[in-house]
Amino acid sequence: MDTLFSYIGYIASIFTTLSFLPQAAKTIKERNTEGISLIMYAMFTLGVFMWSIYGLYKHDIAILVGNSITFLFAIIILSVKIKNEKAKKQQI
Amino acid sequence: MDTLFSYIGYIASIFTTLSFLPQAAKTIKERNTEGISLIMYAMFTLGVFMWSIYGLYKHDIAILVGNSITFLFAIIILSVKIKNEKAKKQQI
Repeated sequence: MDTLFSYIGYIASIFTTLSFLPQAAKTIKERNTEGISLIMYAMFTLGVFMWSIYGLYKHDIAILVGNSITFLFAIIILSVKIKNEKAKKQQI
Repeated sequence: MDTLFSYIGYIASIFTTLSFLPQAAKTIKERNTEGISLIMYAMFTLGVFMWSIYGLYKHDIAILVGNSITFLFAIIILSVKIKNEKAKKQQI
C-alpha cells in the first residue's frame, strides 16, 4: 500500500508540475505578465517555496521535487512581473 | 520542530490555495475558458485530485485540505471548459 501511495504522490507531483510549465515557459519567453496579479503571484511563489521546505523536512520527494521546479519558474515570472510593474510606473 | 514545520505546511497550503481562488472564481463566474488548455487543465485537475488522495493517506491536513478545495474549483472549471469546447464544435 505504501508503494502504491508513493506512486500516487509522484504522479500527482508530475501532473501538477507539468500542467504549470507550458504557460510558465510562455510567460517567461514573451515576458508578458499583464494577466498576472502581483500580490497573488507573490503569494503563490512564497507558498510553493514553503511547500519545498515542507517536502525537504518530511523527506517527501513528491512534494520536494515538484514544488522546487515550480518555484524556479515562479520566481523568474515574479521577477519579470516586478520589473514590468517598475517599468510601467516609470512611464507614467 | 515538528510544530514549526506543520505550520509551514499549513501556510504553504493556504498561500497556494488562496493564490489560485480569485482567478478560478472569475473563470467560473464569466465562464470564459479561452485562455485554458484542455489537456493541461485536465492534467492539473487529476493531479490535484491525486494530491488529495495522497494527503488523505498520509493523514496530512495541509496537503488534503488545500488540494481538496483547489480540486472543487478545478473540476468546475474543467466542466465549463469541456462544455465550451463542445459548444464551439457544434457551431462549426
